[in-house]
Amino acid sequence: MILVLRPDATPAQIEHILDHVKEVGFTPFPIKGEFRTIIGAVGDDTQTTPDSFQALPGVEQVLPILKPFKLASRELHKADSVVEVGTTKIGGGHLGMIAGPCAVENEEYMDEIAGRIKKAGANLLRGGAFKPRTSPYSFQGLGEEGLMLLRRIGDKHGLPVVTEVMDTRQVELVDRYADMLQIGARNMQNFELLKEVGQTRKPVLLKRGMSATVKDLLMSAEYILSGGNSNVVLCERGVRSFEESTRNMLDLASVPNIKGQSHLPVIVDPSHATGRPDLIPAMARAAVAAGADGVHVEVHCCPEKAMSDGPQALLPDQFDALMIDIRKLADMFHKTLA
Amino acid sequence: MILVLRPDATPAQIEHILDHVKEVGFTPFPIKGEFRTIIGAVGDDTQTTPDSFQALPGVEQVLPILKPFKLASRELHKADSVVEVGTTKIGGGHLGMIAGPCAVENEEYMDEIAGRIKKAGANLLRGGAFKPRTSPYSFQGLGEEGLMLLRRIGDKHGLPVVTEVMDTRQVELVDRYADMLQIGARNMQNFELLKEVGQTRKPVLLKRGMSATVKDLLMSAEYILSGGNSNVVLCERGVRSFEESTRNMLDLASVPNIKGQSHLPVIVDPSHATGRPDLIPAMARAAVAAGADGVHVEVHCCPEKAMSDGPQALLPDQFDALMIDIRKLADMFHKTLA
Amino acid sequence: MILVLRPDATPAQIEHILDHVKEVGFTPFPIKGEFRTIIGAVGDDTQTTPDSFQALPGVEQVLPILKPFKLASRELHKADSVVEVGTTKIGGGHLGMIAGPCAVENEEYMDEIAGRIKKAGANLLRGGAFKPRTSPYSFQGLGEEGLMLLRRIGDKHGLPVVTEVMDTRQVELVDRYADMLQIGARNMQNFELLKEVGQTRKPVLLKRGMSATVKDLLMSAEYILSGGNSNVVLCERGVRSFEESTRNMLDLASVPNIKGQSHLPVIVDPSHATGRPDLIPAMARAAVAAGADGVHVEVHCCPEKAMSDGPQALLPDQFDALMIDIRKLADMFHKTLA
Amino acid sequence: MILVLRPDATPAQIEHILDHVKEVGFTPFPIKGEFRTIIGAVGDDTQTTPDSFQALPGVEQVLPILKPFKLASRELHKADSVVEVGTTKIGGGHLGMIAGPCAVENEEYMDEIAGRIKKAGANLLRGGAFKPRTSPYSFQGLGEEGLMLLRRIGDKHGLPVVTEVMDTRQVELVDRYADMLQIGARNMQNFELLKEVGQTRKPVLLKRGMSATVKDLLMSAEYILSGGNSNVVLCERGVRSFEESTRNMLDLASVPNIKGQSHLPVIVDPSHATGRPDLIPAMARAAVAAGADGVHVEVHCCPEKAMSDGPQALLPDQFDALMIDIRKLADMFHKTLA
Repeated sequence: MILVLRPDATPAQIEHILDHVKEVGFTPFPIKGEFRTIIGAVGDDTQTTPDSFQALPGVEQVLPILKPFKLASRELHKADSVVEVGTTKIGGGHLGMIAGPCAVENEEYMDEIAGRIKKAGANLLRGGAFKPRTSPYSFQGLGEEGLMLLRRIGDKHGLPVVTEVMDTRQVELVDRYADMLQIGARNMQNFELLKEVGQTRKPVLLKRGMSATVKDLLMSAEYILSGGNSNVVLCERGVRSFEESTRNMLDLASVPNIKGQSHLPVIVDPSHATGRPDLIPAMARAAVAAGADGVHVEVHCCPEKAMSDGPQALLPDQFDALMIDIRKLADMFHKTLA
Repeated sequence: MILVLRPDATPAQIEHILDHVKEVGFTPFPIKGEFRTIIGAVGDDTQTTPDSFQALPGVEQVLPILKPFKLASRELHKADSVVEVGTTKIGGGHLGMIAGPCAVENEEYMDEIAGRIKKAGANLLRGGAFKPRTSPYSFQGLGEEGLMLLRRIGDKHGLPVVTEVMDTRQVELVDRYADMLQIGARNMQNFELLKEVGQTRKPVLLKRGMSATVKDLLMSAEYILSGGNSNVVLCERGVRSFEESTRNMLDLASVPNIKGQSHLPVIVDPSHATGRPDLIPAMARAAVAAGADGVHVEVHCCPEKAMSDGPQALLPDQFDALMIDIRKLADMFHKTLA
Repeated sequence: MILVLRPDATPAQIEHILDHVKEVGFTPFPIKGEFRTIIGAVGDDTQTTPDSFQALPGVEQVLPILKPFKLASRELHKADSVVEVGTTKIGGGHLGMIAGPCAVENEEYMDEIAGRIKKAGANLLRGGAFKPRTSPYSFQGLGEEGLMLLRRIGDKHGLPVVTEVMDTRQVELVDRYADMLQIGARNMQNFELLKEVGQTRKPVLLKRGMSATVKDLLMSAEYILSGGNSNVVLCERGVRSFEESTRNMLDLASVPNIKGQSHLPVIVDPSHATGRPDLIPAMARAAVAAGADGVHVEVHCCPEKAMSDGPQALLPDQFDALMIDIRKLADMFHKTLA
Repeated sequence: MILVLRPDATPAQIEHILDHVKEVGFTPFPIKGEFRTIIGAVGDDTQTTPDSFQALPGVEQVLPILKPFKLASRELHKADSVVEVGTTKIGGGHLGMIAGPCAVENEEYMDEIAGRIKKAGANLLRGGAFKPRTSPYSFQGLGEEGLMLLRRIGDKHGLPVVTEVMDTRQVELVDRYADMLQIGARNMQNFELLKEVGQTRKPVLLKRGMSATVKDLLMSAEYILSGGNSNVVLCERGVRSFEESTRNMLDLASVPNIKGQSHLPVIVDPSHATGRPDLIPAMARAAVAAGADGVHVEVHCCPEKAMSDGPQALLPDQFDALMIDIRKLADMFHKTLA
C-alpha cells in the first residue's frame, strides 16, 4: 500500500502514521519528496483494508497495490479454467452457447424452443422460473413448476439447463433441478446469496452488476470461490450508462480485460446488454471475436406472447443464422463448440 | 401507452397491432401522420408491460404514459407521509437525524458515540451488525451479538435504532431487535428481501441502488408497500459515476424530484455518497436546504480504529458543529427536529 | 410529437395547448384517457423544438416522434455511403484501416512507422500536428511543420493522411495538407468548427464525444452534411464511464445501432477507447465482427519515447499480427481492404 | 510518481526503468515487496506525463502524486480569489446571482426580464447571442445584434452582463460588449478557445463539461490562468448520467470538493443541471448551503414563447420567491450579495 501524505503533515503526524503502519504488521518505507512525503507500506494488502490508513490524520490518499482477489486471480492459477456443466464445457477453448426464453412459460413453447436451439447448435438451455422484475405487478415466474418443466425439456433434448436463483432460501430447491445456477445482475453483490451458492458444488453463472466494475465482479466471484466452489463462469451483460437507445452498454473490453487477470471463463449476454434483437447478432459475433468463452442469447418462438422480456429475444430462424457465423468464428479462433 | 409504428409498417401489420391492443384490454386511437402512424392505447398501463407491444412486427417504439407505481405515488396519496420510528418522526415537517458508526464494533465505542450524537441532537442511532463487504476477507459484522449491543445502547440513550438486514433469513432476527430495518444500496433490487420486509410492519429505510434511477427506487418501494407495510423512508446515497474523487455522485436533485411525485419521506446520506469527511457537512446542509426529511451521517469516535469505513465518518466534534447549522436550517425551513 | 398532459390539467389549459399546437403549424389529435389526456401533434418535428410545448401550463411531458436528423438518416438515403479518401475507400464493403502514431514527432519515427503499417496492410496514415492535451504544460504538437512532415511521409509510402483540426482558424491550413480532417471527441459539439469543415469538401472523420449519445453524434454529423459536405465517416472511440481499468468504455453496439439508422460509414478506435495495448487487438477484431467499416489504431515504433499517449500504441510487430486476423475477418464478412 | 511493477518484471527491466527515471530528471526510490517492486520517482510531476513511464516494459501501473494543476491550486494561493465583474464581486464571501434568459431574443423581453431580476436582487445579467444548439436546424442566436441589445439592457438596469463565446474568432467581438465571457460546457476542452480567452483580461465563467471530472475542470481553468488571465469563475452545471428524469446530474459535492483544492470561485447552474423549473429553487438553495459563491438561473417572462430552452426557465415571480430564500441563506452563511 502507498500512503500519500498531505503537504502540511506535521512530523508528529508522520511519526504516528509510521507507528500505525508497523502496528498492523506492515513495514514502512518513507520517501521524502520536495512537496510531500509518501510512505510505502509493504505487507499483505488482502488482510487490511485501506480504510484504517485513510483515517489517519495527515494522510491524503491511500493507493492499494496488490489485487484484492486471490482465488480468481491468474497470478496463482495460470491456466484457463474449464467449467463442466453436464456434458458441456465452458472455457479453455470450449464455447458455451446458452439459449432459451427469458422465462419458462409453458411446455409447448419450451419444447419448441429447445428443439430449435439444440438443432442450431446451442449446448445449454436457459429459462427463468424465479424472475427478478422491476415491478411487483409483473409476472414473477412459475417457481418450482417452472423448474420441473425446464428439467424435463432439457432432458428430452439432451441439453443441460441453467436457471436463476434469487434468494438464499431457493438455493437448495434450484440446485435439485438445475445443472448451473445463475446469479443475476441485481444480485451480484447479494453477498449472502454468493456465500450460499459457494457452499454448493454446482457451476455458477455470475452476471456482472449494472454498476459493477470488473474488479467488483471478480471480488464477487471470490466470495463463491472462497466458499469452496471453483465452478464459476462470469458473464458480461452491459452496465448502466447515459446512452438511451440501448437497454445497457455492453462493455466488451471487459472480456480480454478479465481474461488477462483471471483464469475464469467469461461469456457475453448481448440480449440483456442491448435489449434489441437488431443488435444482438452483431454483438454475439463481436463477443466471440473478442475472445469470449461463450454467448448467452434469448430465443423465443413467439416474442409478442412472451410474459417477460419478449422484445429482446431472437426468433429461432434468426438464431439459426447467427449460429452459422458463430461456428465460422469458432473455427477461425480455434474454439470447440461441443 | 403510445405505440410509434415504423415508417414502413404495412396495413396488415397495423391491423394486427390494433387487434392485439384490443385483445389485451386497451382501446386503440390511431393517428396517421405524414411519415408514420402512431397509436394511442388507452387502458391500465400498470397491468400490462410495454414488452408485449414492443415485440409486435411494425412497432418501432412503445412510450408508457402512466407511472408504473401506484401506492408510492402522490397521485393517490396527496399528503406527505410521516413515518414513526419509536419516538422519532420522519417526514411531513419532521427531520430524522440518523447518526452512528458504520459497524457495531464494541460496547465502549457504541456507548461513547451514542452519548455524543444524542447530546448533539440526533434522534436515531445507526450501526451495522451484518455488513455487506465487497471482499469476502473483510470484517463481516458481529451478527446477533451486534444487534443486542445496538439495542442495549439505544435504550440506554433513549435513541431508536436502525440497522441493515441483508438476507431474507435474517429478517425475523433483525426485526426482533431494531426499530427500523435498513435495505442497503446493493439490495435495493433484491426483490425477495423487499417482499419479506413488506410482510413486517417495521419502518424500512430503503437506500437507492448505485445504478438505480429515481423510478427504479420508487418501484422498489412499491414492492414493500404492496406487501402491506406503508412505513417506508427513502434514502439518496449517491450513484456510480465517472467522477473519481468522490466515492459516489450524490444526486441531490432526487430529493425534490421524488417529493414531487411521491408522498414518502426522503433522507440523504452524504457519508456513503462522498466517502470524504471534508465534504460531508456541506452536503448535509445542502440536503436540508433541498427539502430532505432527514440526514444519515456516520460518526465515529476513533475512525482510524474503525473496522469498516472509518475514513468516511465524522468525529463527534465535527458532528456537533454540523448540528448547529442543521438546527438553523431546520428553523429557516420550518422543520421540527424532535 | 406527443404531449402528455398533467392529471390535473384544467379545460382552460387544454384549450390553450390546442391553440398553441395549431399556431405553430401542427394538427392536434387529443385522446382522453381515464387519468389524463394526451395530444398527438402531427407536423414537421424537425422545424420546432419540443421546448415550446414543454413550457405550456398543463403539459407534463413532450415525446418527440420523428428523428431530428435528416441528411444523416437512412430513411432518405437507403444505400450505404462510400467515402473516398485519396485512393482509399471507406464504407459499403470497404474497410478503412487507419494507423500511425498519436502525434507527429519526427521524420525518423514517422518514416519507420509508415513503412511498417503500409506493409502490414493499413490504407490510411494518421498523426497529430495539433494535439488537444488536458494539461497546458503537455506537448501541444508540431503545428504546420508536423503537417508538412505527415504529408511528405504519406506521399512517400503511398498512404493518404488524416490529422486533427482543433480550431476554425486552422481549417484552411490543415485542409491544404491532409486528405481527411479529423474532429476529435472533445470538439464533437464545437458547432462552429463543424460548420467550418462542412464548408470544405474534404472527408471528415468525426469522433464521438465522451458523453455523446448515438443521436448526438448523428446530429453533429448533420451539421457537417447540412453545410454541403457529404463525406463524413463516424468513429466510435468509447465514452466516459465508472469503469476505472480502461480509459473509456467502448460502446461497440453503437456500430450496428448507427448503421441501422444512418447510411454513413462507422469505424472504431480501440486505442483511445481502452488506452491499453493488451486490449486493443481483441477490440479491433470485435469491431470488424460487429460490422464496422474500419479500425483506427495507434502504432508506434518506440512507445516509451512517444511524446503523447505512448502507452496506448501497438508495436509494429503487434500490428502485423493483428492485420492477419483482420484480413481473415474481412474475408469472412465479405469486406474489401484496398 | 509511483511506478508499480508487474510481478514478473525481470531484473533487466527494472534496471532499464531505473535508468529511464533518472534520464527524465527524477530520483528513483525502489521498494521491494513480497510479490512485486514499486518505485517512488521523486521530481516535478507537472513537467512529465505518466505516459512515458506507463509504456516501459515491466511497468504495470503509474500513480501520479502531485496535482497536475498549479495556478488553480490552493497550495500556492491560500486565500479565496475574488473576481470582479463590473461592479459585482464573486468569491471570498461575495455571492454572484446571475439571471436572465437562455437566449437574447428581443428588446421587449430582455427589458422586462432585466427589470424584474434586478429588482429581485440579481447582480449579473445573462443572455446568449451565440447559441450552441445540438441541431443545425435550431435557432442559433442573434449574433452581434444580440450582443448590442444585451449591453444596452445591462447598462439601462445597472447590471454587468455575461454571454457565451463559442469560437476563437468571436472572442474579440464578444470581449467588446460583455463584462464576462462564458465558456459553455461543450467547449470546456476546446483548448484553442481557452488559450484565446486566457489572452484577454476579461473575467471568464468556465462551465464544467458534461463528462469532465473535477480535475479536468481545474486543468481547463489552468489553460486560462497560464495565459495570464486570473479572473476565472468555475460553474458546476451537472454531468451526463443514466438518470433520465433530469437533463443532467447536478454534482453539488463538486462545490466543497473544488473549494478544498482551489482558490477559484465556484457557482452553480441548477437550470441546465436539471432542466426542470420544479427542481431549480431547491437546488439553488442547496447550492448556497453547500458553500457556492453564486447561482446561475434562467429566468424568462414567457417560457412558452422562448426560442431556446424555454421550459427550464423560472418565471419572474418564481425568481422573486427564490431570492427571498437565497438572501436568508446568504445571511446565515455570512455571504454578501451586492
